[in-house]
Amino acid sequence: MRVMTPAFLSDLRAALPANALLVEAEALRPYECDGLSAYRQVPLAVCLPETLEQAQAVLRVCREHRVPVVARGAGTGLSGGALPLADGVVLSLARFNRILEIDPDNRLARVQPGVRNLAISEAAAPHGLYYAPDPSSQIACSIGGNVAENSGGVHCLKYGLTVHNLLALKVLTMDGELLDIGLSSLDSPGYDLLALMTGSEGLLGVVAEVTVKLLVKPERAQVVLAAFASVESAGAAVARIIGAGILPAGLEMMDNLSIRAAEDFVHAGYPVEAAAILLCELDGANAEVSEQIMAVRRVLMEAGATEVRTAQDEAQRLKFWAGRKGAFPAVGRISPDYYCMDGTIPRQHLAHVLARIAELSVQYGLRVANVFHAGDGNLHPLILFDANQPGEMKQAEDFGTDILKLCVEVGGTVTGEHGVGVEKLDATCSQFSSEELAQFHAVKAAFDPDGLLNPGKAVPTLHRCAELGRMHVQGGNLPFPELPRF
Amino acid sequence: MRVMTPAFLSDLRAALPANALLVEAEALRPYECDGLSAYRQVPLAVCLPETLEQAQAVLRVCREHRVPVVARGAGTGLSGGALPLADGVVLSLARFNRILEIDPDNRLARVQPGVRNLAISEAAAPHGLYYAPDPSSQIACSIGGNVAENSGGVHCLKYGLTVHNLLALKVLTMDGELLDIGLSSLDSPGYDLLALMTGSEGLLGVVAEVTVKLLVKPERAQVVLAAFASVESAGAAVARIIGAGILPAGLEMMDNLSIRAAEDFVHAGYPVEAAAILLCELDGANAEVSEQIMAVRRVLMEAGATEVRTAQDEAQRLKFWAGRKGAFPAVGRISPDYYCMDGTIPRQHLAHVLARIAELSVQYGLRVANVFHAGDGNLHPLILFDANQPGEMKQAEDFGTDILKLCVEVGGTVTGEHGVGVEKLDATCSQFSSEELAQFHAVKAAFDPDGLLNPGKAVPTLHRCAELGRMHVQGGNLPFPELPRF
Repeated sequence: MRVMTPAFLSDLRAALPANALLVEAEALRPYECDGLSAYRQVPLAVCLPETLEQAQAVLRVCREHRVPVVARGAGTGLSGGALPLADGVVLSLARFNRILEIDPDNRLARVQPGVRNLAISEAAAPHGLYYAPDPSSQIACSIGGNVAENSGGVHCLKYGLTVHNLLALKVLTMDGELLDIGLSSLDSPGYDLLALMTGSEGLLGVVAEVTVKLLVKPERAQVVLAAFASVESAGAAVARIIGAGILPAGLEMMDNLSIRAAEDFVHAGYPVEAAAILLCELDGANAEVSEQIMAVRRVLMEAGATEVRTAQDEAQRLKFWAGRKGAFPAVGRISPDYYCMDGTIPRQHLAHVLARIAELSVQYGLRVANVFHAGDGNLHPLILFDANQPGEMKQAEDFGTDILKLCVEVGGTVTGEHGVGVEKLDATCSQFSSEELAQFHAVKAAFDPDGLLNPGKAVPTLHRCAELGRMHVQGGNLPFPELPRF
Repeated sequence: MRVMTPAFLSDLRAALPANALLVEAEALRPYECDGLSAYRQVPLAVCLPETLEQAQAVLRVCREHRVPVVARGAGTGLSGGALPLADGVVLSLARFNRILEIDPDNRLARVQPGVRNLAISEAAAPHGLYYAPDPSSQIACSIGGNVAENSGGVHCLKYGLTVHNLLALKVLTMDGELLDIGLSSLDSPGYDLLALMTGSEGLLGVVAEVTVKLLVKPERAQVVLAAFASVESAGAAVARIIGAGILPAGLEMMDNLSIRAAEDFVHAGYPVEAAAILLCELDGANAEVSEQIMAVRRVLMEAGATEVRTAQDEAQRLKFWAGRKGAFPAVGRISPDYYCMDGTIPRQHLAHVLARIAELSVQYGLRVANVFHAGDGNLHPLILFDANQPGEMKQAEDFGTDILKLCVEVGGTVTGEHGVGVEKLDATCSQFSSEELAQFHAVKAAFDPDGLLNPGKAVPTLHRCAELGRMHVQGGNLPFPELPRF
């Protein structure tokens, strides 16, 4: 492990005001993890610049001393993307918290990276506008972190992920240079680096400014709750809704364990006997929403729903959602620990995957609560365990790995909206061929030739994947082969 | 100029069946240009592989002999992106013309790159689905070319460019390796190379397979035609429509010269006395379209329209569009030559930019017909000239350059939907700082270290921009400075 050299410390001190540099163990502690608190590491130092020039200076000092840099927004990430390195610096963008411009005519907001996701919608609200992506952590998470992780949310089925709601970025390279990426017009010359940067988890650059699209608040939003006698039939109903040409603003599913936990916690009025419920939100113009509600109710009944309820007013709509949004803490109340998975599968395999997860639950002897973005096929199985019971944590991890394997087997991916970070690094191996991994590393080197930006996250090394024997083989049917293939 | 060496020819012959390799001058002639016919160059050879293995073999042979490769779809591009190199090979994807899969459940089509844009929608039609981007050349242009140029069309205001309608690509690298890019699920691990590849004009790889999103055909589409007494008021009306929260499927503008030319040509029923017309298409559910038409009519009247007409039936709707779609050939009938510009500006500057173009028209003594995607701020001024009149072509080019400068001055870009190719290479300099250009070249090198894929297109060299003295200066207000700045 590298220790802080006096020369490096002195250069950092010269780059920053005194109150913007933390080096004492006590002060560093709050930065030792992000939302994935199972992984912890105290960094060498934490830098809290307030100006672009200070941030540039920090990067240049780190570059010169070859000290790795982990950029950090609000630290709410769930895959360890902002986990510090023992020999590295954390570059916090927390003080870049100004909304620079709300432009209602061009429907855009230009903000600093430390601005909270929800604060953008709050600032846009007087113009009848809002920023669509709404991760559950939207009260706390920062837009810069959203860009780094390409965050989603309950409404991404209709409104897309962060990448679909961005217009432009300013990004700092490891050299401290500022790149202007994207433009507010539809197309722009040069390579499209906007999507490349989005979701790159701080490995290609540090987000210094974000211009997002603002949408017009829909005239009306309404939610339909449907109960089912089996998770499989609820899963099948999801495919039928989409297949019927309906694009809900949100389409969420909860199984019985989640329903009961949520109902006990927030009293949302859920049918506690149901094996599964779907929450289907429709939004848009008044007349359109009315038409869609009728269509959705018909499809749900045809799909075998035992009960279909439409929220009668805004209070009931919010209550229906309160149950879903409180589902994770609700599950936290009924189990000492839980492990939140995040995988994505093609929608048509929902019923099969849910049945298989139920079998695995029996096999591992661990309960699992399924709460997820059904419309996107983005699963969040919560594996319940007790870390104080010897072996249970390992069992939960193995169960989780099996769920991710299952996602890949049916043509899905090991991530949904939480990113790869450190958590999914090994699981990611199965998704790429050696040529694809080599291409990723070449792209990384094009931005950060010395590998100083958030090393060891997001993209596994070829060597690591080869060691695990998990390299994806072109056209092969063995995403998780038992024998090394590389 | 490099000439074909016997060794290279013999290796190419070994890579391809006899009917897939053209080397005779007569056979090469049809490939000497794309839709930008002002630039012509006969290549060394044209390869027409039919299988992936053959295409891979061609790339490997070219790599080995260090011969540059220009990939070509249908050759309808308007910026010279498929212009051959004298010392290079054209790799035509014309024989990759199979639709591999139409998957109505997951709303996607998987096709080979030589499939025509319109053929996708035709194949999807029995399922009530279609592929949204519709460049004017959609009868002829290929989806692989659409990906390379990130093509738009009349409906991209609502439905986006090619990049917004893609799910996955298979791409061949210059090494002949096949990369799987993107997935049919919402997010995927690894860097997002899908958008990076899209619009990269064949400089990063060769598109070998394309998976596109299919949309449900809207229940109803309806068009409103509005006449205005000045182009400025028509331009202002565009901003008001968007500002009112209406998202038309298409929002097109034509000025008097275009109106008259189109009316003479296709008898669309346009008001020939109007200084400008807007065509505003609304689509969606029946009730929604009715509401939107009322709202649009109201906004148009408030914006000072002298006449507002709603197409009474599908025949009239198609007639309204026939005038717009035939506007380029219609202008071709009234002038020996025309030069089609393609720039993009922030919508709020439409009125100002149109007034300025009118002034430039007087100054240069050349007529200009304005036909364009007003909703996107994507201008297509057609500069009318006669190449047989000494000096007129030069005048037209200078006029065009002034229009592009104007686009950049108001915060827009020098391209809209036609790409950079060879045509806009110099103009592009003003859009980027030297750091940004250096980053682009680093990305290029990460995919094609020897610079063999379509060299000399899309992204100018730093040297060239420095020579032109046009490098964009961070925060500067002189996008086209007269003095070298680099």
